Amino acid sequence: MSTMLLRTLREDPADAEVPSHRLLLRAGYIRRAAPGGYAWLPLGKLVLDRVSRIIREEMSAIGGQEVAFPALLPRDPYDVSGRWTEYGDDIFTLKDRRGAEFLLAPTHEEMFTLLVQDMTSSYRDFPLTLFQIQTKFRDEARPRAGLLRGREFLMKDAYSFDLSDAGLAEAYDRHRAAYQRIFDRLGLEHTIVSAMSGAMGGSASEEFLASADVGEDTFVGCTACDYAANTEAVVTPVPMVAAREQAALTVHDTPDTPTIASLVDLANDRALEGRTDWTAADTLKNVVVTVHHPGREDEVLAIGLPGDREVDLKRLEAALSPATVTMFDDFAAHPDLVKGYIGPQDLKIRYLADPRVATGTAWLTGANQPGRHATSVVAGRDFTPDGTIEAAEVRAGDPCPACGTGQLTIRRGIEIAHIFQLGRRYTDVFKVDVLGADGKPVRPTMGCYGIGVSRAVASIAEQHHDERGLLWPDEVAPADVQVIAAGKDGQVDAALALAATLVEQGLRVLVDDRPQLSAGVKFTDAELLGIRRIVVVGRRLAEGIAEVRDRRTGERRDVPLSDVPRVMTEVAG
Amino acid sequence: MSTMLLRTLREDPADAEVPSHRLLLRAGYIRRAAPGGYAWLPLGKLVLDRVSRIIREEMSAIGGQEVAFPALLPRDPYDVSGRWTEYGDDIFTLKDRRGAEFLLAPTHEEMFTLLVQDMTSSYRDFPLTLFQIQTKFRDEARPRAGLLRGREFLMKDAYSFDLSDAGLAEAYDRHRAAYQRIFDRLGLEHTIVSAMSGAMGGSASEEFLASADVGEDTFVGCTACDYAANTEAVVTPVPMVAAREQAALTVHDTPDTPTIASLVDLANDRALEGRTDWTAADTLKNVVVTVHHPGREDEVLAIGLPGDREVDLKRLEAALSPATVTMFDDFAAHPDLVKGYIGPQDLKIRYLADPRVATGTAWLTGANQPGRHATSVVAGRDFTPDGTIEAAEVRAGDPCPACGTGQLTIRRGIEIAHIFQLGRRYTDVFKVDVLGADGKPVRPTMGCYGIGVSRAVASIAEQHHDERGLLWPDEVAPADVQVIAAGKDGQVDAALALAATLVEQGLRVLVDDRPQLSAGVKFTDAELLGIRRIVVVGRRLAEGIAEVRDRRTGERRDVPLSDVPRVMTEVAG
Repeated sequence: MSTMLLRTLREDPADAEVPSHRLLLRAGYIRRAAPGGYAWLPLGKLVLDRVSRIIREEMSAIGGQEVAFPALLPRDPYDVSGRWTEYGDDIFTLKDRRGAEFLLAPTHEEMFTLLVQDMTSSYRDFPLTLFQIQTKFRDEARPRAGLLRGREFLMKDAYSFDLSDAGLAEAYDRHRAAYQRIFDRLGLEHTIVSAMSGAMGGSASEEFLASADVGEDTFVGCTACDYAANTEAVVTPVPMVAAREQAALTVHDTPDTPTIASLVDLANDRALEGRTDWTAADTLKNVVVTVHHPGREDEVLAIGLPGDREVDLKRLEAALSPATVTMFDDFAAHPDLVKGYIGPQDLKIRYLADPRVATGTAWLTGANQPGRHATSVVAGRDFTPDGTIEAAEVRAGDPCPACGTGQLTIRRGIEIAHIFQLGRRYTDVFKVDVLGADGKPVRPTMGCYGIGVSRAVASIAEQHHDERGLLWPDEVAPADVQVIAAGKDGQVDAALALAATLVEQGLRVLVDDRPQLSAGVKFTDAELLGIRRIVVVGRRLAEGIAEVRDRRTGERRDVPLSDVPRVMTEVAG
Repeated sequence: MSTMLLRTLREDPADAEVPSHRLLLRAGYIRRAAPGGYAWLPLGKLVLDRVSRIIREEMSAIGGQEVAFPALLPRDPYDVSGRWTEYGDDIFTLKDRRGAEFLLAPTHEEMFTLLVQDMTSSYRDFPLTLFQIQTKFRDEARPRAGLLRGREFLMKDAYSFDLSDAGLAEAYDRHRAAYQRIFDRLGLEHTIVSAMSGAMGGSASEEFLASADVGEDTFVGCTACDYAANTEAVVTPVPMVAAREQAALTVHDTPDTPTIASLVDLANDRALEGRTDWTAADTLKNVVVTVHHPGREDEVLAIGLPGDREVDLKRLEAALSPATVTMFDDFAAHPDLVKGYIGPQDLKIRYLADPRVATGTAWLTGANQPGRHATSVVAGRDFTPDGTIEAAEVRAGDPCPACGTGQLTIRRGIEIAHIFQLGRRYTDVFKVDVLGADGKPVRPTMGCYGIGVSRAVASIAEQHHDERGLLWPDEVAPADVQVIAAGKDGQVDAALALAATLVEQGLRVLVDDRPQLSAGVKFTDAELLGIRRIVVVGRRLAEGIAEVRDRRTGERRDVPLSDVPRVMTEVAG
């Protein structure tokens, strides 16, 4: 450490909001080098390499073959697949000196498909799993939280190619199991959640979420069954509505009720339809948004949902992907839309409704006239939505869509991996066919499997730290043992000699031999750096005694210097 | 190999001109993925990783600390250093979604300087050597020769920081020695050549050139001493000119003599100045070029050199770096420049002359009038150049600038590394000062040291191949041994069992177990792939005999199967 590029910080950096970002900066593992771009310093690079190695080993164990593609790719294949347009502002694009267009690839489906088309010809060449650990780029609008959401990051992306759906399912399961082993080795407590709505097959796409309060993803579990899903993928159960006689649609003067709360108050005050038990759940809220479809014109869209629910923008955008959404505000250009009093009756724009707005349900909603609402507006009778949409927030206590009996619980997590049965989307686009065993052409089917490598490092830091610093799981720590020379001269020599012995035994050792620092500063730094096994060569050196500390348990014990190699090998083994 | 992504090609790919490119493509090590961008296939990735590992080991051995910077960097630091403008079209630049400007870094001097400024404060933090093995980008106008000149490539760049010039010199020597070890281990026959003109100190910058006929660099040696230099760095010895009485400048009608050859013929025919021994070396050729200075206006520049020499564009651009040069052709806009009859007398543009145009030398040159030339145009009397320039071609047989007695020889090579004493260029620009041992601020001095990692792979292929394929040096080969099952069934099983035994002994083994191919195809592929040790499990398996081949020497011998592990370990060791 006396020669290492390391400068620990006592204070939290001003711009670091989350623990992993704060501690990785303070402990000198990373340094900001660009907006959303970080340099890995010597200690950080060691951790990153450990994580990469574990991923590489487990990918090899399932037959994955490592390759490496360029990051800077020509536009053409991404035009063919449509992703150049779909990604829009989310990717970095540039022109070369001749004006030819390129992108910095966010993922490589197109290139792997073209490679397999180029390199295979027969069923004998399959199945095939290829992967790379490679730098990815994404023009994040708001890079944040250090390594958790950056613009340049390390990713492992794998692609499987099979000739049958059953083969793809097997490849998917192999990756799923390998990922569980990887994250277990990385010490990452994680949940595998469904990432796709059930309509497309529950197993077609899953995410691995590392539990973390600072996670950007929310996911649900069930109190009764093993259902787990990203909130974006939660499917709202459609209520059973018994057929019955309904009152006729009636329009009421409801001045000054632009909000759901004011409307409910008025409905109860006036006892509309003879009721005084109106709640927000009885009202139908109609939200107008502008949908930005990549490559074509913007669309004004209305979304209907029960008045007691807010729109969840992430769920809405997931439902409309790859389109993005902004709130609509140009009411002047749409005189048919009466702000605050919109109802689904006679709307001139597309209208998508929450599944709870099922046929036969009756609502209190806007009458499309200023200061007026209507009661007994019945879905299927007075209006018919153009479709359903999962745009409403998911709440703890909601019924479980899987078992129907349990209630949903909600937690936060960091997406550390995503596995996906792509199917033939890309092989269809590029018309990839190989000779089948029966002599007829067969089209390969694909899976893609990503792990955020640099994000995994941050997630580990997020799960493994305390108020004093980092606390790395053994397999990813930058060293197996940290030896601290508490004082100078003889203690430094003894610490270096001990370290040499430990290195001979195959251990990776970091020695704090910095001559100008006090023992206290070194101890504080060691706790910040977060290597579990700490050996202090200090005052009792003369007696041949060192102190062995466990950063995790806090345990300290005196050990004869000559015993330290044995003790360290035992605990490290 | 039955499951590996591998497809060897019998024919040379149409667009591959040089042997390394041809063979790496044919043997399935790389595949083109973009203009100037290549994907590393499984076998290629293994070689690339071997090369990286050797570099990493030797860099660690001299105390280098590995870090990793982003490739996508903000414009600002490169503006401060001036390199944003200097690089011009040679770098890829782009704007993010907010319009902020970025570049894909060709090298990282700025970022390392800023990192050291951020992370150090005192003389105790020095010396320091940092390195990374990282993807670089360069907008090559003409990417060619596969990995030899690409737009995206892997590079090891290292930066040393010292507090004294002596420290820098030591860091430079350490890197120089480490590079020699690296290239020896890579099996790369190389020459270290001076890369800077002697005026700036011969040792301040050197290149490592791998000998190769296809190399883009030419370099000189001396028949008498150990001088070696890139031709761009060769300094022309200035001739000693004895002071003497010279004839007066005389203008002659010389119609139809736009070329040197026609002028010499005319001079001899007419016996100008009573001589009939005129040669091209007696004439002064004046070449007009347009100099494109980055960030400022183009300049029209005239260059004078003996008529028997051509301008070497690479030497000219090296002399004018970072400017680039194109031939001047807008004579209409410069009526003072008489095409074909330009002389250095009364030129209105800047004029730089070859060192051979020394004060006191007399020349036959243009008279700045159509169809007229002048004799006895004496440097220092009739014209005075604005300076000298090394723009003339270097020829075999030229006198050695170092010893003065030997003659230059010329060879071609591939630049595989460049080491450079940068000095304080960047620490001055960013005003980096640390506390010195005497309590006063001291400014660190830098060296930078680059190795083209992917280019090294191609250079190895360039030096190690024959007409049948590649022939890897042991340390970089994708495997230590290739085991070939010549036939099917029992031979495949035996080959796989043998491979398992070899792997247990720590060897890396590639097994050709492809069931559908003939032994002949497998042998041909093995020679193309280029792993030195080949074990054939074939017809004599029943007798317990395998054939051991050496791809390099062609030697073949029968070895009892049970002896193969011992034999392989011995030769691989």
